Amino acid sequence: MIVSEIEVFLREDTGDFDVFHSSLPDEIIRARIIAKEGGILAGLEEVVRIFSHCGISSSHKCVDGDEIAGRDIIIDLEGSSRAILQNERVALNILGRMGGIATLTRACVDMVKHTGTRIACTRKTTPGFRRFEKKAVMLGGGDPHRFNLTDAIMIKDNHIRIYGMDGAYKVAKDVGFMKKIEIEVENAGDAVHAAELGADVIMFDNMDAGSITEAISVLDEKKLRDSVILESSGGISVDNLVEYAETGVDVISLGMITHSARWLDFSLNVR
Amino acid sequence: MIVSEIEVFLREDTGDFDVFHSSLPDEIIRARIIAKEGGILAGLEEVVRIFSHCGISSSHKCVDGDEIAGRDIIIDLEGSSRAILQNERVALNILGRMGGIATLTRACVDMVKHTGTRIACTRKTTPGFRRFEKKAVMLGGGDPHRFNLTDAIMIKDNHIRIYGMDGAYKVAKDVGFMKKIEIEVENAGDAVHAAELGADVIMFDNMDAGSITEAISVLDEKKLRDSVILESSGGISVDNLVEYAETGVDVISLGMITHSARWLDFSLNVR
Amino acid sequence: MIVSEIEVFLREDTGDFDVFHSSLPDEIIRARIIAKEGGILAGLEEVVRIFSHCGISSSHKCVDGDEIAGRDIIIDLEGSSRAILQNERVALNILGRMGGIATLTRACVDMVKHTGTRIACTRKTTPGFRRFEKKAVMLGGGDPHRFNLTDAIMIKDNHIRIYGMDGAYKVAKDVGFMKKIEIEVENAGDAVHAAELGADVIMFDNMDAGSITEAISVLDEKKLRDSVILESSGGISVDNLVEYAETGVDVISLGMITHSARWLDFSLNVR
Amino acid sequence: MIVSEIEVFLREDTGDFDVFHSSLPDEIIRARIIAKEGGILAGLEEVVRIFSHCGISSSHKCVDGDEIAGRDIIIDLEGSSRAILQNERVALNILGRMGGIATLTRACVDMVKHTGTRIACTRKTTPGFRRFEKKAVMLGGGDPHRFNLTDAIMIKDNHIRIYGMDGAYKVAKDVGFMKKIEIEVENAGDAVHAAELGADVIMFDNMDAGSITEAISVLDEKKLRDSVILESSGGISVDNLVEYAETGVDVISLGMITHSARWLDFSLNVR
Amino acid sequence: MIVSEIEVFLREDTGDFDVFHSSLPDEIIRARIIAKEGGILAGLEEVVRIFSHCGISSSHKCVDGDEIAGRDIIIDLEGSSRAILQNERVALNILGRMGGIATLTRACVDMVKHTGTRIACTRKTTPGFRRFEKKAVMLGGGDPHRFNLTDAIMIKDNHIRIYGMDGAYKVAKDVGFMKKIEIEVENAGDAVHAAELGADVIMFDNMDAGSITEAISVLDEKKLRDSVILESSGGISVDNLVEYAETGVDVISLGMITHSARWLDFSLNVR
Amino acid sequence: MIVSEIEVFLREDTGDFDVFHSSLPDEIIRARIIAKEGGILAGLEEVVRIFSHCGISSSHKCVDGDEIAGRDIIIDLEGSSRAILQNERVALNILGRMGGIATLTRACVDMVKHTGTRIACTRKTTPGFRRFEKKAVMLGGGDPHRFNLTDAIMIKDNHIRIYGMDGAYKVAKDVGFMKKIEIEVENAGDAVHAAELGADVIMFDNMDAGSITEAISVLDEKKLRDSVILESSGGISVDNLVEYAETGVDVISLGMITHSARWLDFSLNVR
Repeated sequence: MIVSEIEVFLREDTGDFDVFHSSLPDEIIRARIIAKEGGILAGLEEVVRIFSHCGISSSHKCVDGDEIAGRDIIIDLEGSSRAILQNERVALNILGRMGGIATLTRACVDMVKHTGTRIACTRKTTPGFRRFEKKAVMLGGGDPHRFNLTDAIMIKDNHIRIYGMDGAYKVAKDVGFMKKIEIEVENAGDAVHAAELGADVIMFDNMDAGSITEAISVLDEKKLRDSVILESSGGISVDNLVEYAETGVDVISLGMITHSARWLDFSLNVR
Repeated sequence: MIVSEIEVFLREDTGDFDVFHSSLPDEIIRARIIAKEGGILAGLEEVVRIFSHCGISSSHKCVDGDEIAGRDIIIDLEGSSRAILQNERVALNILGRMGGIATLTRACVDMVKHTGTRIACTRKTTPGFRRFEKKAVMLGGGDPHRFNLTDAIMIKDNHIRIYGMDGAYKVAKDVGFMKKIEIEVENAGDAVHAAELGADVIMFDNMDAGSITEAISVLDEKKLRDSVILESSGGISVDNLVEYAETGVDVISLGMITHSARWLDFSLNVR
Repeated sequence: MIVSEIEVFLREDTGDFDVFHSSLPDEIIRARIIAKEGGILAGLEEVVRIFSHCGISSSHKCVDGDEIAGRDIIIDLEGSSRAILQNERVALNILGRMGGIATLTRACVDMVKHTGTRIACTRKTTPGFRRFEKKAVMLGGGDPHRFNLTDAIMIKDNHIRIYGMDGAYKVAKDVGFMKKIEIEVENAGDAVHAAELGADVIMFDNMDAGSITEAISVLDEKKLRDSVILESSGGISVDNLVEYAETGVDVISLGMITHSARWLDFSLNVR
Repeated sequence: MIVSEIEVFLREDTGDFDVFHSSLPDEIIRARIIAKEGGILAGLEEVVRIFSHCGISSSHKCVDGDEIAGRDIIIDLEGSSRAILQNERVALNILGRMGGIATLTRACVDMVKHTGTRIACTRKTTPGFRRFEKKAVMLGGGDPHRFNLTDAIMIKDNHIRIYGMDGAYKVAKDVGFMKKIEIEVENAGDAVHAAELGADVIMFDNMDAGSITEAISVLDEKKLRDSVILESSGGISVDNLVEYAETGVDVISLGMITHSARWLDFSLNVR
Repeated sequence: MIVSEIEVFLREDTGDFDVFHSSLPDEIIRARIIAKEGGILAGLEEVVRIFSHCGISSSHKCVDGDEIAGRDIIIDLEGSSRAILQNERVALNILGRMGGIATLTRACVDMVKHTGTRIACTRKTTPGFRRFEKKAVMLGGGDPHRFNLTDAIMIKDNHIRIYGMDGAYKVAKDVGFMKKIEIEVENAGDAVHAAELGADVIMFDNMDAGSITEAISVLDEKKLRDSVILESSGGISVDNLVEYAETGVDVISLGMITHSARWLDFSLNVR
Repeated sequence: MIVSEIEVFLREDTGDFDVFHSSLPDEIIRARIIAKEGGILAGLEEVVRIFSHCGISSSHKCVDGDEIAGRDIIIDLEGSSRAILQNERVALNILGRMGGIATLTRACVDMVKHTGTRIACTRKTTPGFRRFEKKAVMLGGGDPHRFNLTDAIMIKDNHIRIYGMDGAYKVAKDVGFMKKIEIEVENAGDAVHAAELGADVIMFDNMDAGSITEAISVLDEKKLRDSVILESSGGISVDNLVEYAETGVDVISLGMITHSARWLDFSLNVR
């Protein structure tokens, strides 16, 4: 978390001229952030940076990724009353949003642990806050998948519609040997074709678990299974997650762990 | 939505060097964004700005705030295939996040319509994206509440613990006659004291509906009810929302409409 | 004053490549900023931040808001000769501009002290420097009025011309319960109408003192006086300020305290 | 005026979420900016850029640098009522501040026209707004002097106190052949020494007119007058400006034309 | 090339206040950029964007990646004389730097064409200008390699020294399935170990051609050759480039094509 | 080097989400940057700032401008293994690029030392990195020439073609007395005319040494030689540099010292 980022987040919440907090008589106080419910902690590193940037000292026993319970003390603060009151909300928002994602991710990870399948997130993140959301996924035990369009190449349905799978693959192959190439498919035949082209990853897009199982066995037969990573995405929820994981895919990517996670609840109490 | 904001959001998703899309042969294509489920539309104005910034022309029949159904066409696009494919995800993320908030807000607003109570959001928003989340609340029929610490003054439990209600109120009153002052209270006695001090708004913080009803009748007796706006906050969910609204408070503020709204689902299809 | 602001101000004065100061042999020196005339001190907090950002240590006995006299020592500095010489001008400009505003504000505040009327500034500020100018007004004892269009709502002559007072008021009322609404009026009749609509603040715009007195008595008769804050603005100078204050308005807002304040003079002397 | 500058200035005045103007029904309107007093016009180019950036079309007959009279129409606008109302204040602030400086500068320039002396400004400008203030000086007929520490080198009293005139000059001479070097002096002897060193410009700092006249005649005698530009600065006001100009200096630099200019008054009227 | 980037580059060359060009009488002129020597064209797309941003229209027949000869017309411009003169240098600097890199890259690519080896660049680029330098490499026919530390993972000598190859690989494998992992080795034994671990790419670091040939045959024997991409880097110049390419490596990465390319020469002539 | 600059450079190389380095177990390590070849050191001050910004402590014996030999230890580092590995490349790129320029500059400076001619650079620099490149020139003993269009005024062939030398000079003279004015000429006649106009500097543009010698003697005859600085530029390389210097010009400006300098080689070794 760099200085310019911290300043953007704080300024959003403080506004241009917070005369109230600036006019309060300044005192040295102690305060605590406390969890109001259980879950996976995420965002603590950021909160420490923010308070330190504002001259507030802190100490903590738990660390990001820990499983916490309601009433747990997350961080102890000591410093200017003005600064603590002025920056409280940003800190709580980071913990709440990141903790919510980490908690939901961990739950999904635990559900499929017996299968060895990885849980990954997508690029369905809040604009401007992706880095923190993907980090929360990792703290929950999930995989960040690609961060942006520069990282790795995905040939999706729209690319195939315009350029054809072969055409798009050829461009992808030419633009750099250091990027993995993933191809979205909707049936076994396309999966075989993608594997034969040389895709590093094949994504079964919106296919039901039965079709995926079948596609995998076709790939197996053709000795293509081991040369690709298989990912399943689309239409997967906590209700059918295990079923998908048991098809034998390597990765399940879930938009919901970022876009439908509810926040974890924390509060800051002056002592 | 200003140029520098658009560029920050696009750059987050594109990364520094999206060689794949830049190397695809450029064609003029048509594409559509389609709703995959029903809800309240929000973010369309932003999406139009983003595509226009990238040289893509668009047309649309529905507008922000409309109730939409699954399969509705949200916007028709025409322009460079590279640019549409490269900017698709940011557009969908904005529609998904803002639409989810607007939809949940509208549901809450509709539940309490018979009481005349306003539904408001809080400052529990994603860092860096607050403006869009508060706008979505408004499109859903909700009230944006204060945007940041500069807008209006809230004297909360932590302020009272350090400075006392009277001490904090005195500072608040001195720093500018153009700001409303809100005081958080936890019981009827404090509510009366806050009203007597001259608070513009009193927030019943984490009080149950019964205690609120009682506090209102005390204020009524003392002829203080009409000079203040009454807000209820804390511990309110869709399950007990109506009960709170029926206490006679003017406003109910809900963290959940921003922090626990799941996204609305949209997809972009090349035609 | 955040890091990015400090860097913008320093870079403006340093330019991209100040080879002269960078090439001077660096020595540890002591220097002082001294007032060259009397007035109200403002900007010292900013100056301390700037010098500290550049590694220069400082100490001072007076604080922002103090009445100072010519020859008073404002701040003692110790540190790199290069850094002190390179950053001197920005520090003096901040003290000069802010001190000038605080001094003029204090003079106006003192003139009307017997009436209890507040002196407020307007949004007539130098683009990019408003926050410091409004802070200087506060240090002079004035009121910052609204900071920007987000803070509070003013329905001005142009709004009324396009939308009518009622139309504009309805929109204003709908967009958020936390904002005060002010309406500009030019005669007693409009003042009554504005008060009946429910305006929090009524501004007598460019009305002479006699007409204001009359308008106030009409509001009084109609029992509307106590429910609104009355502000007078336009055409008010030091010559007629007292006359306006004695009409009984609560606030007088003056563009001149920001836009026509001349600077206070300071100099930095190496010892 | 670049896009990022425009956005910074507009955002300062709009705030993060101007719900009032955003919620007004949008209409195409016509409006005018009118001068409320006479003076020299400055800032029109910037105002045109700002309105154009916001999609508002404009036309104007006068140009920057023109002498205008009260009631003159400065610019005619046509476009969105929301956008005109939202951006009005920034436009007026630019015209007011820049026009005030240009007007005062022109008055000074006119006073000394018979002497051929140039009127220049200093670096005593509002942090963040220097470029516009120096441009206003030029529109008033004044000289911008150096813009920042990178432009040209001034060896001032503090430099001399630490490094000596010779020491500082040696460094200055070494750091680049494309920069002019100016030396501040306080008496004739130092002026001669500075000229002999090879200074391009000599500034008589806080010297009275008599001492300056004397110093010039010493330089004349020593055949050094023609190889340097002579500047006078410090303690010069409209009252003694002519006396200083008549000493024969080439340039008089005045802090007051930027730091003590009061604004020119303009208003925007919807038609 | 986004607006904020263009403005940063132009502002660097224009400075804060280019009074000379701003004061020149503005005329509509035509001008041309002409190549002063042969090479590979790169940067034209950027130059078109910059001139368009400044309101200058342009037309061109050649495109980025073309082989050009001395005296070739690169682009025809028409527009404001001020704007063309003011922005000329940035345009020429982009063409010169990018063209120089593209030209050197193409020469290297041509030298090894018979072997099928790819020529790649490294992260040895000018801070702040990497994107344009990597794009120039691509226009010259080279591979951009990874853009930054986020793109792909390289386990280099320093990583191995601290964490061991196995330790570092384990971390790399865990942090995301979408990233390729490259391991630097210095001998055949380590290459075998890296391949067995599962590295996607193995870099022969500062090994001579003979040792590389030998290492490849060891990999071949162990049936590991086909599962990895082999890259050679370090100590390779135009003199021994072909020798390295003929070892059978897939990629040769060369710091020199970015860090030691001299510029291509262009000039802008007003007609 | 300001905080926002450091963050831009580091972010370019780190990317948005460097999960690999962030996941490595953090250890306190010691490392060294070592020169791999001889030359002139430049960029050390920047490297110290960058590592300090990242919490890494450092010590060094050599300073910028020193002549270094291969195997010399440039800087010793101690701190977080993650931070050192993550920021290594930016540090090396700065040392490599700046050192290369300083080294080539020093070589040129040494070649002409007997003549007293200054070696200067031009504005042919990498966009966004000019300040560091010009600083490297100075560390090599060269002159930075003007930094940008604001610093000083050059009337070049294109200006003369459009406005005439006299026309352009008149504008230049009017826009500020603190700027030097340089005029490009192509023959002795124009040089005389430029000197008579009052140019501070005359640049012989693309003239051969013979023609320059002749032009200087014409200026001498007309007693104009001593009032101007004479600069030669265009077509000068290491092969004919001495010949040009011996014509008696004061300055030779060379694009090649920035645009054709190859990097100096450094490496960072963990101990």
